[in-house]
Amino acid sequence: MNYDFSIKNLGECKIESPLSDIGYFTEDKKRLLFNIYLDDYSSQKDKNGQPLSLEIAGPRSKIFFSPAKTKAAIVTCGGLCPGINDVVRSITMTLFHRYGVKNIYGVRYGFRGLNPACGHELLHLTPDFVDDITSIGGSILSSSRGPQDINAMLDYMANLKVNILFCIGGDGTMKAAAQLANIAEQKKLELSIIGIPKTIDNDLDLIQKSFGFDTAIEKAAESIKSAHVEAKGYFNGIGLIKIMGRLSGHIAAYAALAQNDTNFVLIPEVPFDMEGEKGFLKILEKRMRARGHAVIMVAEGAGQDLLRKGNAPVEKDSSGNIRLLDIGLYMKSSIENYFRSIDMEINLKYIEPSYLIRSVPANASDSIYCSSLGQYAVHAAMTGKTGLLVALMKEDYVHLPLHTVASGRTINPHGNVWLRVLETTGQPANMKNV
Amino acid sequence: MNYDFSIKNLGECKIESPLSDIGYFTEDKKRLLFNIYLDDYSSQKDKNGQPLSLEIAGPRSKIFFSPAKTKAAIVTCGGLCPGINDVVRSITMTLFHRYGVKNIYGVRYGFRGLNPACGHELLHLTPDFVDDITSIGGSILSSSRGPQDINAMLDYMANLKVNILFCIGGDGTMKAAAQLANIAEQKKLELSIIGIPKTIDNDLDLIQKSFGFDTAIEKAAESIKSAHVEAKGYFNGIGLIKIMGRLSGHIAAYAALAQNDTNFVLIPEVPFDMEGEKGFLKILEKRMRARGHAVIMVAEGAGQDLLRKGNAPVEKDSSGNIRLLDIGLYMKSSIENYFRSIDMEINLKYIEPSYLIRSVPANASDSIYCSSLGQYAVHAAMTGKTGLLVALMKEDYVHLPLHTVASGRTINPHGNVWLRVLETTGQPANMKNV
Amino acid sequence: MNYDFSIKNLGECKIESPLSDIGYFTEDKKRLLFNIYLDDYSSQKDKNGQPLSLEIAGPRSKIFFSPAKTKAAIVTCGGLCPGINDVVRSITMTLFHRYGVKNIYGVRYGFRGLNPACGHELLHLTPDFVDDITSIGGSILSSSRGPQDINAMLDYMANLKVNILFCIGGDGTMKAAAQLANIAEQKKLELSIIGIPKTIDNDLDLIQKSFGFDTAIEKAAESIKSAHVEAKGYFNGIGLIKIMGRLSGHIAAYAALAQNDTNFVLIPEVPFDMEGEKGFLKILEKRMRARGHAVIMVAEGAGQDLLRKGNAPVEKDSSGNIRLLDIGLYMKSSIENYFRSIDMEINLKYIEPSYLIRSVPANASDSIYCSSLGQYAVHAAMTGKTGLLVALMKEDYVHLPLHTVASGRTINPHGNVWLRVLETTGQPANMKNV
Amino acid sequence: MNYDFSIKNLGECKIESPLSDIGYFTEDKKRLLFNIYLDDYSSQKDKNGQPLSLEIAGPRSKIFFSPAKTKAAIVTCGGLCPGINDVVRSITMTLFHRYGVKNIYGVRYGFRGLNPACGHELLHLTPDFVDDITSIGGSILSSSRGPQDINAMLDYMANLKVNILFCIGGDGTMKAAAQLANIAEQKKLELSIIGIPKTIDNDLDLIQKSFGFDTAIEKAAESIKSAHVEAKGYFNGIGLIKIMGRLSGHIAAYAALAQNDTNFVLIPEVPFDMEGEKGFLKILEKRMRARGHAVIMVAEGAGQDLLRKGNAPVEKDSSGNIRLLDIGLYMKSSIENYFRSIDMEINLKYIEPSYLIRSVPANASDSIYCSSLGQYAVHAAMTGKTGLLVALMKEDYVHLPLHTVASGRTINPHGNVWLRVLETTGQPANMKNV
Repeated sequence: MNYDFSIKNLGECKIESPLSDIGYFTEDKKRLLFNIYLDDYSSQKDKNGQPLSLEIAGPRSKIFFSPAKTKAAIVTCGGLCPGINDVVRSITMTLFHRYGVKNIYGVRYGFRGLNPACGHELLHLTPDFVDDITSIGGSILSSSRGPQDINAMLDYMANLKVNILFCIGGDGTMKAAAQLANIAEQKKLELSIIGIPKTIDNDLDLIQKSFGFDTAIEKAAESIKSAHVEAKGYFNGIGLIKIMGRLSGHIAAYAALAQNDTNFVLIPEVPFDMEGEKGFLKILEKRMRARGHAVIMVAEGAGQDLLRKGNAPVEKDSSGNIRLLDIGLYMKSSIENYFRSIDMEINLKYIEPSYLIRSVPANASDSIYCSSLGQYAVHAAMTGKTGLLVALMKEDYVHLPLHTVASGRTINPHGNVWLRVLETTGQPANMKNV
Repeated sequence: MNYDFSIKNLGECKIESPLSDIGYFTEDKKRLLFNIYLDDYSSQKDKNGQPLSLEIAGPRSKIFFSPAKTKAAIVTCGGLCPGINDVVRSITMTLFHRYGVKNIYGVRYGFRGLNPACGHELLHLTPDFVDDITSIGGSILSSSRGPQDINAMLDYMANLKVNILFCIGGDGTMKAAAQLANIAEQKKLELSIIGIPKTIDNDLDLIQKSFGFDTAIEKAAESIKSAHVEAKGYFNGIGLIKIMGRLSGHIAAYAALAQNDTNFVLIPEVPFDMEGEKGFLKILEKRMRARGHAVIMVAEGAGQDLLRKGNAPVEKDSSGNIRLLDIGLYMKSSIENYFRSIDMEINLKYIEPSYLIRSVPANASDSIYCSSLGQYAVHAAMTGKTGLLVALMKEDYVHLPLHTVASGRTINPHGNVWLRVLETTGQPANMKNV
Repeated sequence: MNYDFSIKNLGECKIESPLSDIGYFTEDKKRLLFNIYLDDYSSQKDKNGQPLSLEIAGPRSKIFFSPAKTKAAIVTCGGLCPGINDVVRSITMTLFHRYGVKNIYGVRYGFRGLNPACGHELLHLTPDFVDDITSIGGSILSSSRGPQDINAMLDYMANLKVNILFCIGGDGTMKAAAQLANIAEQKKLELSIIGIPKTIDNDLDLIQKSFGFDTAIEKAAESIKSAHVEAKGYFNGIGLIKIMGRLSGHIAAYAALAQNDTNFVLIPEVPFDMEGEKGFLKILEKRMRARGHAVIMVAEGAGQDLLRKGNAPVEKDSSGNIRLLDIGLYMKSSIENYFRSIDMEINLKYIEPSYLIRSVPANASDSIYCSSLGQYAVHAAMTGKTGLLVALMKEDYVHLPLHTVASGRTINPHGNVWLRVLETTGQPANMKNV
Repeated sequence: MNYDFSIKNLGECKIESPLSDIGYFTEDKKRLLFNIYLDDYSSQKDKNGQPLSLEIAGPRSKIFFSPAKTKAAIVTCGGLCPGINDVVRSITMTLFHRYGVKNIYGVRYGFRGLNPACGHELLHLTPDFVDDITSIGGSILSSSRGPQDINAMLDYMANLKVNILFCIGGDGTMKAAAQLANIAEQKKLELSIIGIPKTIDNDLDLIQKSFGFDTAIEKAAESIKSAHVEAKGYFNGIGLIKIMGRLSGHIAAYAALAQNDTNFVLIPEVPFDMEGEKGFLKILEKRMRARGHAVIMVAEGAGQDLLRKGNAPVEKDSSGNIRLLDIGLYMKSSIENYFRSIDMEINLKYIEPSYLIRSVPANASDSIYCSSLGQYAVHAAMTGKTGLLVALMKEDYVHLPLHTVASGRTINPHGNVWLRVLETTGQPANMKNV
């Protein structure tokens, strides 16, 4: 990881902030320690020899952009998740009402909408337009996956005289945003690029919790209740749930913590065998003999090694994401075959909530979180900062350079969250034969 | 259909009802007209030459069974649906508190639990045991599918001195219950068999509405919201939902009426072509070109003819139900292939709520409905009536002979409900090329 | 009650219905029996000597109004309830898409909006305008209470060339609509007045169930759960809920049936004493000594005689409704005083959900119900029928003359619903000392 | 505030932790910095001259109590809030399954249940008993307010040989727990006292967020939706909500942030005038003239100075809490009188959700939070630590001495949360005339 947390500015801030009536400002020199334990707070130093630290987000007393002349645009990329519209609303409202920026564009269909070759028109965002959008899920601007030509997008924005671009998206989007910021700098464009990171999988490094995650867990937990009811509804009933989580098991793990009826959680971070004495099927059999029912939650990215055994090539989609093989259906048939082979009746019900957990509106806590992110993003943008994203870390909102964030945060199999999952489910820590 | 609506009694009712403090009783001679329109009420006559009519349910002033000596059992069969526990609670509470019957057995795992060969123990049901069961979905007694030996079950109940059996189940369960009643009569057993019909598909003849259906629609409607959000979230987005409904499209149709965002509803009752000028794919293409997004809801039993084209033999499961081919995945790949073939980008999201719509607790109106059904079932049983089920017809609770009810009620393609679906979705009435 | 169920028409229907592509029509001569029991179906006769019957609602093959020239208006009056926007949407969509009527006005603030003296502008209703309104509670048109000058309203509509007025409202609104229809007839205006009856209290005569009632019960039931939790949360805890229900206890009774934790339901229809051996306080004391907690639900119109003891004059509001005295606070202080007087500690928590139960969006079943009502209202209007309301009776939609419906349906203390409440709560049938 | 964050131990930990199979342990020397900003992390020092820091919670490799001989008790005190049962379940499960402690008592009715003079029996808590308790709100153990005799409680526990007492409660409970720990130490009792802080008002010092707060906000936000619907439902409609928040406005502020339709938030921390040019009534009038509707949310502790104007003495209840005067009804009549005085029609609807926001089960995020708190409390107790509470600070779970926590955290009128409320509502920062 690159630990250079310094933030770039387009230039000196000379304009008095219109927020002066409140009299609440944050100074650039207010910084959050990166390491906050007694034994390690000074273990990493920045180039000034100070303990490593991060810039605190918040409104500044001086701003860079003149509100009357500023044009801002908002783009939403990648998969949907609860709260995107809350962020869009918050950015629009804060720009409009607090800073007096009246020219706000909504970019349609992700980065496609910034590439004139795709032919999508921009929306004009106003307080009236965004007022009620938080009551619906998804993105009012629509989204898309995959990259677009960086220069085409920069030229388009330059023509439109857009000064600020807010990018709401995941790992790939933040990378593209970093590129936009870098090349804009090379081209000496007066363009601030601000990221608001989004991932339903909650797997972004450094960031305390992705927005929308709480809401998704609430929905995912409903499917556990459902699977439990089905499992207990029949003789030797098994409820099997496949849930989102491509590279990490955050959703599966937290859903299991939220709803106590899960007996097995299978995630990408913790490999397991199906066969053998310690393998999953044997352990499931023991559970069935002892209790007569079981609920299994499997993240979509779990057990990919089991499916790929020495064959299938790894495919990728247009965004460069690996095409996963279907662990859910694999588990379903493996379990059914196994119990058929030992002549033991079971009744397995398969549940795949898929998009149902992510396409709902944000719940209250996510809604609050999203409106904060939007406000801090605007504060950062108006001061001419660029190439950063706003993030919650240790309950403080900070500015992180775009390059520092990548999807890669996983559940630590020796950490506290997984320990609690093991406690809650009662499943063995090890389901590998060796 | 057999129009003999006469109800059998085990014998004369000589015991004063313990409900006399309320002073509210219904008489056997109170009967609901079967035909209630001015032009047809006397179009069908019973054997007495009277307009065809049905016995009204309710407490009678005299009862047959002596509460102190009565033993009752409750069995739940077939698929789960919201409200089963409400019925179980209501039967138990009414027997115990209103009639003073203290011996109430809960039969585990459907008819299996009445066949001693299966080795399941009976539960003893008390007010304390059932008090809070309505807050959870499914069946507290568990269920099973498929038949058991009729004589084995009758012998088992005779040994236990069970006088009343309440059967909560679907079409097949009501048929088995009818057999139990017939053979019990032949064997001169003093056993009252009372059915409470259940089907998530709402497809039972004569019955106004299945319990649990309202709740299932509420959940099914949520998946439409979700599909709509996904469809609008991407360029040329399509949300495709596969929903329960094996032989009838009640769930799909009513969910579409409850949530306005559906554009196509495909049900078993209304055949359609995929290919051709009038076929579904062409019409979907037009919709996509005009509006840029679409939501499609397909009942699992729809379009089976398309999948079976001159080949696959029809398989059946242990309950005798036809194994359906997967119309959802067929639609998914057909749509994707079609748009690929015309080189038009779409983004299709597939949602299959499956058990999520049926394993929730009953909502308020279903809860009220279920507690009524339970109470009327007990009133009928205590008077020694047998071979009947309690049903809501035209807002009145009636006694129907078990043999009169079968699953077969479908959506009439020329009727009012389907008309309203067409109005709501805007889809063409005819998607067949000929 | 006036049993003349004949429906007035503005004139002969000569225009082919635009719905002919569906081929589903209802004929005027299709009539529902008013009495549907074997022993009374011919107990009441109409002027032709036929059993009393009602016209069935539905689309007719010939219509009266020429769609291109027709102007319709929709007005919403009285208290809010779930589903009003569903009715408004359904009327608008059916007029626009099915019949081709493009001029549809939304009247703001109830009948005020039809009185030009109030100065409110009309809204122009379009499919786009109404598309998403079902996701919010209340009335998109806003409402008001109280009457307006009938002639002023008729003149205003005549000037605007409005041919159809849809009135969504309660008892008083239906009376005003009847007046509008009568005077319009005297003035020979070509104006169809169609009512869609609405009352959160579910107390309209003849009508099977008010729209929005299911949803309100669902919310009211939540408050019982809450009161139960509070009652069990403390030593000798009592949860006291005051709930809507001015003249009838439908909400209180059905909420208690939906959520089993209520121990006492007090409604306007069943008088009770507070003091004395059989009085409520003594019975509550017994319950508290036996079980240590209690949940009491009191309808706002209950026990008004207790509060008025030989004094307070009965006041009325601008709509002519009686101003109720606050039975909730009276109960609260009476209970607290009583237990203080016998030196017994209790912990009483008072809950008044008030508008929380009526300002939510319609649930699925109400939403379906409301869209039906809207469609049938439009079918009736387009055929030039007037002075009627559309209503669900015995699961059939019928046309009822406006004058036949009044709020007056109460819970029968000797009927089936109250019996079931007594069974559910276990409260004594009689809490009067004499 | 006392900044001595050192934690007391009953003695040396000599027993191997039974959690060794997981291999995940936290060491006492792992400490979280109290100040985590670059400019202040060393501004406060502990007695060793180190930057002020706090002990991190978590399982230790060695424990103090021998599981087989340990008896634990759990008590829940003060007002109910969502998640109490989740904490009780988690403590019980972790003690039983992870540490093997089988003797776990549930204390009924708060500290009353530890005073034998009150005569309440203890419950025996088992995994089966607590398995499903998280699906219901409140406290399965019941609660009570007010103090009990410290020595009587200690003697009672000594007689029962209780080694660990878990106290779930608020400010007052933590103070009583501190007393129990102090006197137990003086008496040389081997008794570990562990607090789990609880307050629906979210006003405890140092603690990041109270458990149950998220859930309460979710419910409180529903009442804003409701008030908004009512306000827009009538001519010049006003929705007025009184919400919990005795000494702080956290609930009101966060609910307003979660649901955007609030126009005024009034909290104890920000005084306001009713009368005068800058007073609330004048500002409300302007809003009504401009927009025609308004939603006002007032915390129960707001504006107490307005109600007490130079008269009413301050009363206190048995727990020593100030009896608040009713700001809700005061606002209601003040607003109605004001608009009557200027002859302007308004329609005010008053909503008081009261206990409805706190008696629901925990939502997913609170449920996860509560189960963590319970687990950390058990880890702390088993190592013989005492006189501490477990708390979330800066996303880390820490041990805080009981004496350091008091209710006193308020909304800073010049801080970030209030700024965001002002942004969201658009209300003036100052509604005082001077």
